Amino acid sequence: MRKPALRQQLDVSWNSVFGDFSRDGQPLNIQIRRMIVHAVETGTLPANMRLPPSRNLAATLRIGRNTVTSAYQQLIDEGFLVSRQRTGIFVADIAPKPESTAKSSGEDKVWRDRFIVEPSKMRQHSKPRDWQSYPYPFLFGQYDPELFPTNNWREAVRATSSVQEIQGWAGDMIDDDDPDLIEQLRVQVLPRRGIFAAQGEVIITVGSQQALSMLVNLLVGRDTPAAVEDPGYPDMRNMVSLATRDVRFLTSDEHGVVPDQVFAGAKVAFMTPGHHCPTTIVTPIERRHAILEAAERDDVLIVEDDYDADLSIQEDGNLPSLKSLDRTGRVLYVGSFSKVVAPGLRIGYIVAPRPVISELRVLRRIMLRHPPTNNQRTLATFIALGHYRQHLNKAGAAMLERSALMERLLPKYLPTCRTSRGRGATSLWVEGPPSMDARRLVELARRKGVLVEPGDIFFSDPAAGRNFFRLGFSSIPAHRIEPGLVRLAEAVRECV
Amino acid sequence: MRKPALRQQLDVSWNSVFGDFSRDGQPLNIQIRRMIVHAVETGTLPANMRLPPSRNLAATLRIGRNTVTSAYQQLIDEGFLVSRQRTGIFVADIAPKPESTAKSSGEDKVWRDRFIVEPSKMRQHSKPRDWQSYPYPFLFGQYDPELFPTNNWREAVRATSSVQEIQGWAGDMIDDDDPDLIEQLRVQVLPRRGIFAAQGEVIITVGSQQALSMLVNLLVGRDTPAAVEDPGYPDMRNMVSLATRDVRFLTSDEHGVVPDQVFAGAKVAFMTPGHHCPTTIVTPIERRHAILEAAERDDVLIVEDDYDADLSIQEDGNLPSLKSLDRTGRVLYVGSFSKVVAPGLRIGYIVAPRPVISELRVLRRIMLRHPPTNNQRTLATFIALGHYRQHLNKAGAAMLERSALMERLLPKYLPTCRTSRGRGATSLWVEGPPSMDARRLVELARRKGVLVEPGDIFFSDPAAGRNFFRLGFSSIPAHRIEPGLVRLAEAVRECV
Repeated sequence: MRKPALRQQLDVSWNSVFGDFSRDGQPLNIQIRRMIVHAVETGTLPANMRLPPSRNLAATLRIGRNTVTSAYQQLIDEGFLVSRQRTGIFVADIAPKPESTAKSSGEDKVWRDRFIVEPSKMRQHSKPRDWQSYPYPFLFGQYDPELFPTNNWREAVRATSSVQEIQGWAGDMIDDDDPDLIEQLRVQVLPRRGIFAAQGEVIITVGSQQALSMLVNLLVGRDTPAAVEDPGYPDMRNMVSLATRDVRFLTSDEHGVVPDQVFAGAKVAFMTPGHHCPTTIVTPIERRHAILEAAERDDVLIVEDDYDADLSIQEDGNLPSLKSLDRTGRVLYVGSFSKVVAPGLRIGYIVAPRPVISELRVLRRIMLRHPPTNNQRTLATFIALGHYRQHLNKAGAAMLERSALMERLLPKYLPTCRTSRGRGATSLWVEGPPSMDARRLVELARRKGVLVEPGDIFFSDPAAGRNFFRLGFSSIPAHRIEPGLVRLAEAVRECV
Repeated sequence: MRKPALRQQLDVSWNSVFGDFSRDGQPLNIQIRRMIVHAVETGTLPANMRLPPSRNLAATLRIGRNTVTSAYQQLIDEGFLVSRQRTGIFVADIAPKPESTAKSSGEDKVWRDRFIVEPSKMRQHSKPRDWQSYPYPFLFGQYDPELFPTNNWREAVRATSSVQEIQGWAGDMIDDDDPDLIEQLRVQVLPRRGIFAAQGEVIITVGSQQALSMLVNLLVGRDTPAAVEDPGYPDMRNMVSLATRDVRFLTSDEHGVVPDQVFAGAKVAFMTPGHHCPTTIVTPIERRHAILEAAERDDVLIVEDDYDADLSIQEDGNLPSLKSLDRTGRVLYVGSFSKVVAPGLRIGYIVAPRPVISELRVLRRIMLRHPPTNNQRTLATFIALGHYRQHLNKAGAAMLERSALMERLLPKYLPTCRTSRGRGATSLWVEGPPSMDARRLVELARRKGVLVEPGDIFFSDPAAGRNFFRLGFSSIPAHRIEPGLVRLAEAVRECV
């Protein structure tokens, strides 16, 4: 049981450190020292935390002050505490700090039994966390420090940090969005994809990931036949698999999804016609019409994940989105600013018929209320000032330069691989020789400073993607491309 | 309102471009630029249209000519305008936009049949969206413009807008958090509630709403007996009701939740022992120990929603959180910066045993990846600079002043009502005379500029809360309290 004295005289936090202190136990000085050392070693007391003044601790524990000061002094001598003149005694920064295992580490097994879902059991897409420190990151859709519009972004941040602007974004929007961002989307962003949406037909999300997740929540129940691409975006497959027992895999050919019997049997189909993930196939206009006709005939809802729309290289104009061709209001459109501005901001959106958006607003409210409003407002201001358009031009030019380089160099450096890239895409899908194990390639390349993504993660059956990998160029500066490919070529030779 | 001057001195068409110009809004240069960009993008200003000479526009808007010329120049640099020698400045011919062909309206009935869940059918907590325009907002937990630490926040924003910092937050963290925010939480925030957490025992969320929502996803299945408070936080009840068919209502008395048979039968219990929502009851220490003992005996997991912890008035020290007393690792702790900094930022967190946090990271990744990193980093910097502690002191002093006023004035103005407030709480729970319909009171008060929250929304059976309302004072300046109560007293008299 707790000592009442502790609660009265010390900050409550010290309870869990000295709560077991007893006048009848080991010598008092030793008890104090072992309790502090234990708390420091287990990370319970973090570095730089201030200890209670010796007078207070002594009074609380009802022991002499000398006992405390001498305990503190010993711990200072031993490096667990540090004394800072005139400010007090603090926990030292002893490294490395072991993680706490004391009271709060439940046993894994016990917890497994308590979980309703076990997301960690799913296969995960993994990129090295420290990818920015690799010289040759052939990754797709990551932040590119070279292209980020730093000064223009800062201008937008400053503009939204005035007292009046803060008043506009600091409050609880409940289920609303920043009206200015909705307006900028409608006026400046969506029309680029041929989409003209009314105010009530757009909702902002925490990246396109949350957009997809909410649509799954709203449309996919335990027994809903829901179809995803295969190969396809792994987290899309994961989300749908968590929601329904009836996951189906859409048939694909060189034009993207085939509107066949699998498609017809689904209630919802999640697809990426703009650039199929991961093959980058662009679904041609005739196929788009065929998909929409089948969707109407068979009453299939389509979620169009147009994740990289604005990052696309405008090589000779993009095709209209499925959503823009949809005459029956059954395409739910998902977009994102992650690829083209920065993933760290987490801003995406859904365009859908009004009844869907109304329901999503309530769903979003109980899931997280709304995406942070300050970021919405900063992005809106960034777009409103014309910076977005300017940024797209700059990024587009950079992507065009890089894609030309890639096209020119690949036959030379990867002659044994088959590469393909849909029009406008900023990554390539690469099929190595049958003998190649792409997982091994990824590891060999990594050791040479080159990052590429293994292909198997995109397939429901990993074996089917064994000799595939993805080669992105949206995050690698042009001058790094050739030296990177030289090293990648070495790695390919070593693992074939 | 249109400015008459505009119509007099400029061609009438410029009215719709600069009509919203205000000397009190965003910086003038920014206003001018965003208005022109908007007009160009929407086609309001067609290509090749000549802009007003800078001298004329400056005179019309009553601003310096330099402001106009520099705005024009920036837009020329960005390609929205072109300058033609000796003739003036014109709208550039930016890419044409495709015509809309899509039809995006869906019929409600059709959509109802497609939804797996219909969140909009649930009873919702509603506050007027424009509550900031009411003079007497007796609301709980809203943003208070008077208290927001504007300058210190701006300092933190500036500090996290350097090129290097942007590089730190702009990327995709996948399932990670800003390590600095985790550190600040561990060192400066959690110890205030007696909680010492290791790095792997904390995860950041998009407000506490997402924290609760993820815990429901992880722990509550279709048949899981899950218990919530009644009365209680309506969205908590809503979330649990969406997840399970077996919602149970915890027994409560004047000390909060009673660890009885209902409690024992639940697999998870969601509760607010710090300040019960909405009654503000503080669960005393003996009851806290009793709840923990029962939880261990009956194997009940506890989600402790400590939503207003740091906003609490430190009247004579707070009790240790349930989590800090927990020896068996079964309390999952939820906290938030919404109440004490700003709801618009959407930053909350969960402290839980490592296996839970690991699973939540994957769940969060597929739900939305991670909360925006720039906000995490700005908040971390704000705390690290000592601004958070300073802000808590300032807010605490303001709350103390307001609570003293409320305690003094309530017996005078609401003699027919029974008010109660748990120690440290920033709202009161008010029971009107049996004849009072609080919904009517809310409406009558609103017409007098006074906002209070109806109590029925907190009850599973709305009739049980018919004559209750919540009276918050965390968002109303002290000098508005008495005039507000005068008007509220009138409304009470009118509706009894």
